[in-house]
Amino acid sequence: MKIEKENSIFSFSKTNTPVAKVKPKEKICIETKDALSDEIRSENQSFDSINWEKVNPATGPIFIEGAKEGDVLEVNIENIKITRDYGVMLTGKDMGALGDSFERSFIKIVPIKENKAFLYDYEIPLKPMIGVIGTAPKEGNIPCGTPGEHGGNMDCNIIGEGTTVYLPVNVEGALFALGDLHAAMGDGEVCVTGVEIPAEVFVSFNIIKDKNWKLPMVKTEKNIYSLASKPSLDEASITATKNMVHFLSQEYKLSKEKAIFLLSATGNLQICQVVDPLKTVRMELSLEFLK
Amino acid sequence: MKIEKENSIFSFSKTNTPVAKVKPKEKICIETKDALSDEIRSENQSFDSINWEKVNPATGPIFIEGAKEGDVLEVNIENIKITRDYGVMLTGKDMGALGDSFERSFIKIVPIKENKAFLYDYEIPLKPMIGVIGTAPKEGNIPCGTPGEHGGNMDCNIIGEGTTVYLPVNVEGALFALGDLHAAMGDGEVCVTGVEIPAEVFVSFNIIKDKNWKLPMVKTEKNIYSLASKPSLDEASITATKNMVHFLSQEYKLSKEKAIFLLSATGNLQICQVVDPLKTVRMELSLEFLK
Repeated sequence: MKIEKENSIFSFSKTNTPVAKVKPKEKICIETKDALSDEIRSENQSFDSINWEKVNPATGPIFIEGAKEGDVLEVNIENIKITRDYGVMLTGKDMGALGDSFERSFIKIVPIKENKAFLYDYEIPLKPMIGVIGTAPKEGNIPCGTPGEHGGNMDCNIIGEGTTVYLPVNVEGALFALGDLHAAMGDGEVCVTGVEIPAEVFVSFNIIKDKNWKLPMVKTEKNIYSLASKPSLDEASITATKNMVHFLSQEYKLSKEKAIFLLSATGNLQICQVVDPLKTVRMELSLEFLK
Repeated sequence: MKIEKENSIFSFSKTNTPVAKVKPKEKICIETKDALSDEIRSENQSFDSINWEKVNPATGPIFIEGAKEGDVLEVNIENIKITRDYGVMLTGKDMGALGDSFERSFIKIVPIKENKAFLYDYEIPLKPMIGVIGTAPKEGNIPCGTPGEHGGNMDCNIIGEGTTVYLPVNVEGALFALGDLHAAMGDGEVCVTGVEIPAEVFVSFNIIKDKNWKLPMVKTEKNIYSLASKPSLDEASITATKNMVHFLSQEYKLSKEKAIFLLSATGNLQICQVVDPLKTVRMELSLEFLK
């Protein structure tokens, strides 16, 4: 099944109408627009031409059959295919870490070929990742540009091919969506974008019952991560740490002091992004310690 | 030359009397006490027995011959030898990320053997690093437990064997000191300590003239880092990014927008620690892009 990019939402909400129903283990292809709704084609394009109401589209929502409130939705990112020969970056006045020192704004077109992104004369190896990935919250509308406990715009560098993402099921069917792909992005996303691209994302789902985890979480071949998005990095770092301690307590019966000593000696507190309405931090722990 | 650990300071200041004079390129051994002044030997030791006035000793200060105000001090960390068969960790009430959820405090003795630290039943590979490394500020006393533009307690995981650290020379001779070694520490140091150890650190110095860099900076075989310590991670992340942009402008003539696009696509904003009086963030950039 392929879900086309014209099926998009700009906020996560239980009131969104599902565009597809998918069974657990079914492999599907989700086509996405870039974070600017594919509307930027030139570095000379006026910033005023950008429709800010249409940034961060996420394709969906997808109804996952059998997903009930309180379950954990496991999302397996099997493959990501970039579907355009260039990416787009933006920065400038009031945007990102240098926002206070720019007088104007800048668009950068980043050609993509031979498995690299060509930013000026820099050849950047592609490492495609998903910026927005989430489920509907229990109540309200959360803009796709905002991260939170439902996932959303976490801009987590780690969410790429081979990654498993764990999200909460807050409403029947979960109402999953994703978008905002990046051909490459450094931790922090400091200019306010990654190398923004449209893509096809191949995923499958599982439903996990009876787990009391503080979500979102992410797993790769080597590591497990707890993620937290809060108004400040300081708050996010404390919450991400506490969420991992909670997970270790739930799944491995670790006492709080044993868990925090392990994380202090070997866990890595890492920044996902510092430029969205909430900031996102992840705590990384090697799966070596969870055998 | 060996500088023994009895020669220690508890704050960086131009009023400290040098304990040695060292020439550029001279290899020296700096012996250090652990961050608790080697006073903890048992998990049953009372927390009240800890002399908080004697935490974070740094061995020195060392007068570097030829270092003048305005120079950059290059410190090459050649080798680190752990000199005790156990490390110490602390956490508890009002300490670290879980400080608000502990009723009491905990000491953990961490045996070290066969190139591993044994924390409970976890076998943690040793990765020795330097927590406190700095020079005297131009004015005032900065406690060794506090990081800043002079270096100090940055608790930066990257500062280990083979690393080069760049620090400001604020007073004649620089008055360099280091201490607070960790056998292993995750980024964040979330419990409030790493695996605290005494050590011998083998270093040599160079003096770099006529550079306008915002310091501290760090270089490894693969990457270069700008570091910033601020009251919040949010402020530290902005400053670390701006400091790298400044460096790229000074050394490689990059425009601000070119530098920030490069950092957003490939640079990694990373957490050093979240538990000292100021919090420390580093911006990592691959040396691949600086050829």
